[in-house]
Amino acid sequence: MAIKFEVKHTCSQSGARYGILQIGEQQFETPMFMPVGTNATVKTLSVEELKQVSDGLILANTYHLWLEPGPEVIELHGGVKNFMNWDGALLTDSGGFQVFSLSSLRKITEQGVHFTNPINGDKLFLSPEKAIEIQNILGADIMMSFDECPPIDLPKTQLKESIERTLRWAKRGKNSHQTEQALFGIVQGGLDLELREYSALKTIEIGFPGYAIGGLSVGETKQEMYEVVKFLKPILPQDKPRYLMGVGTPDDIINSVIHGIDMFDCVLPTRNARHGQAMTTSGKIQIRNKIYQTDLSPLDPGLDTHVNNYSKSYLRHLFRQKEILGMRLLSYQNLAFLKDFMAKIRQAILENRLLDFKKEFYQKYYFKK
Amino acid sequence: MAIKFEVKHTCSQSGARYGILQIGEQQFETPMFMPVGTNATVKTLSVEELKQVSDGLILANTYHLWLEPGPEVIELHGGVKNFMNWDGALLTDSGGFQVFSLSSLRKITEQGVHFTNPINGDKLFLSPEKAIEIQNILGADIMMSFDECPPIDLPKTQLKESIERTLRWAKRGKNSHQTEQALFGIVQGGLDLELREYSALKTIEIGFPGYAIGGLSVGETKQEMYEVVKFLKPILPQDKPRYLMGVGTPDDIINSVIHGIDMFDCVLPTRNARHGQAMTTSGKIQIRNKIYQTDLSPLDPGLDTHVNNYSKSYLRHLFRQKEILGMRLLSYQNLAFLKDFMAKIRQAILENRLLDFKKEFYQKYYFKK
Repeated sequence: MAIKFEVKHTCSQSGARYGILQIGEQQFETPMFMPVGTNATVKTLSVEELKQVSDGLILANTYHLWLEPGPEVIELHGGVKNFMNWDGALLTDSGGFQVFSLSSLRKITEQGVHFTNPINGDKLFLSPEKAIEIQNILGADIMMSFDECPPIDLPKTQLKESIERTLRWAKRGKNSHQTEQALFGIVQGGLDLELREYSALKTIEIGFPGYAIGGLSVGETKQEMYEVVKFLKPILPQDKPRYLMGVGTPDDIINSVIHGIDMFDCVLPTRNARHGQAMTTSGKIQIRNKIYQTDLSPLDPGLDTHVNNYSKSYLRHLFRQKEILGMRLLSYQNLAFLKDFMAKIRQAILENRLLDFKKEFYQKYYFKK
Repeated sequence: MAIKFEVKHTCSQSGARYGILQIGEQQFETPMFMPVGTNATVKTLSVEELKQVSDGLILANTYHLWLEPGPEVIELHGGVKNFMNWDGALLTDSGGFQVFSLSSLRKITEQGVHFTNPINGDKLFLSPEKAIEIQNILGADIMMSFDECPPIDLPKTQLKESIERTLRWAKRGKNSHQTEQALFGIVQGGLDLELREYSALKTIEIGFPGYAIGGLSVGETKQEMYEVVKFLKPILPQDKPRYLMGVGTPDDIINSVIHGIDMFDCVLPTRNARHGQAMTTSGKIQIRNKIYQTDLSPLDPGLDTHVNNYSKSYLRHLFRQKEILGMRLLSYQNLAFLKDFMAKIRQAILENRLLDFKKEFYQKYYFKK
């Protein structure tokens, strides 16, 4: 197997885990955040910049790369990492989430999902085996099981059926998987704790080198989400990495870390950046705001990056003029912020003071004047 | 005066000039190309990248910066260079060209031009004195006289009137100019050689540290343009830099260099880049073209940049997905190409073989199979 994971320390104050995830020759400290490079590029950034503002593990989306440029083109390059010239590590999702959220005329069968390619109207079919086949070609270090992502309000009977199908799909995916890439299982179950437990235990039974929690961050409240994550803490295997998919925001990250999560990904830091929202060590700001028109101060004196070479006034100007440099600088800032944030979380875990850190962080980031 | 210029060598084969333009403490070899940073940013690029792909002198547009963010905001920063964190040199135009090409409800009087701000409908007025006042605040090393840009097909009587007015404006601008910034005069006259000579002689009479040729590259044929530039070669002062505004393409640059031009600017290299058109040492290519779908070769093996870390196939994918990284990489490529091209032109001038170089270049760039 291409990955190894070890929990090196558990925070005595919070129960959060500090670990080392080894992928091939590369070591990654957890908890960690993975920037999202949907189309084999983290939007607006070069790989050189991405090296600086990530911990070295990024995500790409199987669904998007399957449709464009297609697995054939990526296979010619020897995988996504070569394709995008990324010498770090890579995780791909299964394509399932996008099939459920982006495609039209979707039909779920036991075999898999039939849907229509929104780009050209082609009929497509994604199954557990197909998701593995594509991900084998994409060549990520970590790949994900093909799962069904049921809507958050699905009645329990149907949710149970969906979970059973996802479990059968997980088994089929694992059986068809032949490469050295690590394949993670995904726990579903919506907000129903009984079903979450069932899904977790059955997924663990199949056996994977890592487990993701799926089906969250899809419209439920933060408290509902935290409750599920907390509930799964003692159920998921202690010695395997835990990945909370599609999360998130600083508060979601820190609360989920407290509940044992090791890995995160989210498009929001870069998407919000492209709309002028900057994450800084003293809180979020919308740089288009009129108050920054004549503000000569740098964006975030608390974070040492080249973004501070520019005034807020200049950044605002770039956004008002829809200049790409503005989106670049804020994307860089937001990922640099999250990288720094994760490093501080890991430090606090090692110092057994994550709850104190959380309080301090909230004070500075959310409750500032 | 903030600038000095000296012709160091004249190509015995072509008559082209190699010179040194000194701006403050910085020296620039000519002929040179200036990338255009309309809104105080060369679109898609960071200043660090711009350092790499320019010769250190760039252009910003007075009209755009006057409207947004406004001279007050730029004055707070101590000028455009500080505003955009550019430690190279800067040239600003007068705003005249944009008033004539972009604004609506324009009314020209002897005093100046009344027009409507297309962003908010405000009534604005630009005059020779106002253009100097704004450019003083923008703080470029080189600024331009406020001139009228008549349409290329204006009848001779009206063209003469326009030239006379531009001459009176040039005088007024020079009289109102008080700073150490260098102010260049602009020769107008359309395609009428008699009027070009008149405009040139009268502008030289007023006296400027550099002369631009305006009113070209506005719809005339290449041969018509070259004829005007060639005609002005013996008329313009030998010891002053000559700037051909808004040009251009490699063929226009090399032919104008042969006719004595020292400085160029043009938005096309970066604008075309954003639309997928790459300039390479073996010719132009449209990267969106289907033939590049599976092309694993780098964009331009003849030019050593990091853009060659990516396959044409990947670049095509980025453009199909409208990914900003694609626009960044091609903007970088096109400016790197032009920087290299200008360096080769200067070398050929010093070796008295610019006509040979032109032939070799055309063969490779325009006549390739």
